[in-house]
Amino acid sequence: MSLTDELLGTVAELRRTVADLHGELTRNELVAWTAGNVSARVPGRELMVIKPSGVSYDELSADTMVVTDLHGRLRDGDLAPSSDTAAHAYVYRHLPDVGGVVHTHSTYATAWAARGEPIPCVLTMIADEFGGAIPVGPFALIGDDSIGRGIVETLRASRSPAVLMRNHGPFTVGRTARDAVKAAVLVEDVARTVHKAFELGAPAPLPAEDIDRLYARYQNVYGQR
Amino acid sequence: MSLTDELLGTVAELRRTVADLHGELTRNELVAWTAGNVSARVPGRELMVIKPSGVSYDELSADTMVVTDLHGRLRDGDLAPSSDTAAHAYVYRHLPDVGGVVHTHSTYATAWAARGEPIPCVLTMIADEFGGAIPVGPFALIGDDSIGRGIVETLRASRSPAVLMRNHGPFTVGRTARDAVKAAVLVEDVARTVHKAFELGAPAPLPAEDIDRLYARYQNVYGQR
Amino acid sequence: MSLTDELLGTVAELRRTVADLHGELTRNELVAWTAGNVSARVPGRELMVIKPSGVSYDELSADTMVVTDLHGRLRDGDLAPSSDTAAHAYVYRHLPDVGGVVHTHSTYATAWAARGEPIPCVLTMIADEFGGAIPVGPFALIGDDSIGRGIVETLRASRSPAVLMRNHGPFTVGRTARDAVKAAVLVEDVARTVHKAFELGAPAPLPAEDIDRLYARYQNVYGQR
Amino acid sequence: MSLTDELLGTVAELRRTVADLHGELTRNELVAWTAGNVSARVPGRELMVIKPSGVSYDELSADTMVVTDLHGRLRDGDLAPSSDTAAHAYVYRHLPDVGGVVHTHSTYATAWAARGEPIPCVLTMIADEFGGAIPVGPFALIGDDSIGRGIVETLRASRSPAVLMRNHGPFTVGRTARDAVKAAVLVEDVARTVHKAFELGAPAPLPAEDIDRLYARYQNVYGQR
Repeated sequence: MSLTDELLGTVAELRRTVADLHGELTRNELVAWTAGNVSARVPGRELMVIKPSGVSYDELSADTMVVTDLHGRLRDGDLAPSSDTAAHAYVYRHLPDVGGVVHTHSTYATAWAARGEPIPCVLTMIADEFGGAIPVGPFALIGDDSIGRGIVETLRASRSPAVLMRNHGPFTVGRTARDAVKAAVLVEDVARTVHKAFELGAPAPLPAEDIDRLYARYQNVYGQR
Repeated sequence: MSLTDELLGTVAELRRTVADLHGELTRNELVAWTAGNVSARVPGRELMVIKPSGVSYDELSADTMVVTDLHGRLRDGDLAPSSDTAAHAYVYRHLPDVGGVVHTHSTYATAWAARGEPIPCVLTMIADEFGGAIPVGPFALIGDDSIGRGIVETLRASRSPAVLMRNHGPFTVGRTARDAVKAAVLVEDVARTVHKAFELGAPAPLPAEDIDRLYARYQNVYGQR
Repeated sequence: MSLTDELLGTVAELRRTVADLHGELTRNELVAWTAGNVSARVPGRELMVIKPSGVSYDELSADTMVVTDLHGRLRDGDLAPSSDTAAHAYVYRHLPDVGGVVHTHSTYATAWAARGEPIPCVLTMIADEFGGAIPVGPFALIGDDSIGRGIVETLRASRSPAVLMRNHGPFTVGRTARDAVKAAVLVEDVARTVHKAFELGAPAPLPAEDIDRLYARYQNVYGQR
Repeated sequence: MSLTDELLGTVAELRRTVADLHGELTRNELVAWTAGNVSARVPGRELMVIKPSGVSYDELSADTMVVTDLHGRLRDGDLAPSSDTAAHAYVYRHLPDVGGVVHTHSTYATAWAARGEPIPCVLTMIADEFGGAIPVGPFALIGDDSIGRGIVETLRASRSPAVLMRNHGPFTVGRTARDAVKAAVLVEDVARTVHKAFELGAPAPLPAEDIDRLYARYQNVYGQR
């Protein structure tokens, strides 16, 4: 496959968007060293744009991003793709509405993942954004489709755009890469707040009907139309 | 209602002030993504200036702020107002001395709110600024006056300019928007310090008469006259 | 008393030093809003330079600093001095080797102060810098010499340049204002580390003879001669 | 020994590298005041480049770095070397593959060190980077080879590039100074995450065979070839 001019324009724009969005990971202190990555699906194509492996966040630019197909094979770019590429690719193959994927090892979300405990829905913000408890996915080794499959199966059983992969860390998805980054920021924010709440007591989850009303309202009313 | 020239001058200044004060929310790490807002009453008018809904803090400017009446109806500006506008408006309608309102989901204040526990007055700073324990307001769903009413009833029963709305987060008020921001910064600061104190023990509250003396002194002596 | 030209030169330099050192308080996240202050003794004079009351850290400059005598009476400057001036002044009157004083409400140091617990000497850094456990001073109300007296009596019974004033926060001293700021930075650093250590266990204090050797070495060997 | 022109070129480059890498210590909040240092071995020489003692991080530059031999004696530079020079030098003398050493008192790693507890391998990131639990070294006083010997003996019994020196803090090593800094950043990151995980439960360590597979893969596949 060679990239047409039109496709090259779309890809160029996505390379910039994805490179810039990594700045939100550092600004929100979700990542240490190079341990986190953002990708975006190339709309209508079997392609995605993703971070190269092991490159510092201040060396990232549109040019250093790489393009792979949805089996993780390099299609454009000079560097090797993120070591998490297979997981991102699996998600795009199996969840057609997902346009962006983010993976971090952010502290509090990863602490819940290390214990294998979902984050209970004890805050209106969790009901708004995640529609209920934030679920835990299975422990899976890197190297084949295990991580991707664990993400997809867990997300399909939930309204949450975030999954806490056991002993590993959070993966988030969104309609766009920016939405997935938002979910990565907010899953760490609520993971931290709920952690603090449980350090000194045991807050009760919100009633299911209140969660449903908050979630429905937020998905339909919040932001600019 | 159309805005007169004089009123436009006042509103223009408040738009800038309110936009700038959101910078204190990010600088003090009180907000994640777009989850927090500042408003100011337009003095002598049934109007307020407030953040637009779902807009990033680095895109905020005097121009993007919106003006609503005290029932939350848009009067000036191109964007939809904050989804918390009804709560701000209710506070201005019922507490005539309040000139500014702030809402955040800051981590530690929200953790106390998730447990539904007031922050006990175990520090001289809490006596100075809040005049006693920082109270908890009821759980209330967004969509009508429930949140606003919960804020007002709780603040009326206390000297505190901050209320921890249960399972939700803090709201603060002040004579000006800047004063309300100061209360938002300090409620998180003392929520964090008292949280840390209780993690390793159980500090005793200050005696009521000491709280009264500290509060009286601070309200009358601190700062520049 | 009117200030001579020579004295004015010294004072002008100290105003700049003290103003700049407040930047270390914010950079090291020791203060929220305006709640912390640095002062310096004017060498050989019954004078000190201190922060004005209730002024933001980004508005501080050499010009806005104020000069008081060692009973807290304004001698030079346009603004009212810090509300903690009496405590600083008392320290200078009673501890002639002290050239700088710092007061903050830094989170972890204040949490130990809220419980009234000294920070035990479980780290080589504490032995180096503080020469043993960091002591707690009495609860004292602002308004007379109680706070200053509590600071001085506690410091005299210890090698530590820091004291945790009960239910209030840390005060630190040094040969210079910069040394006092260093102690304010390090007392928060070790307060936090020891807090974390105790959250998951109970580290044992270092043996007294090791503390003595570390303290002696550090006071004589560290840094540039 | 006088330095030849060629050696001076290598040393000049290492001075800059080592000075710059201290910026990663502050950016990643691993150090308070001047309490942390980076060194690099001069390849093929019995020399190392290290931070001067007690100098602020913003005053560090290529010029202020110092060169010592591998017994800590000053060979080039105007300032006294770090008070931890003997420990760095011992590591270079005994571990020939080590090209860089870092020492910090980073909060969470030091908290584990204060309790004398290794950080258990409950996260894939720990398996990847450290190949198992992060070990604790003995308590040792500064002043002779005790600290260096404790570091070397502990690292030889482990795959980890980090050791938690008891009641003191972490030391890390790497093929280069940059690798040692990476290990210093990541040991604090996982120390924090595992601390948070244990605050609310007791995560189980990964099975030894999974740790081996993750470690082998990461050492061979991650990053750019």
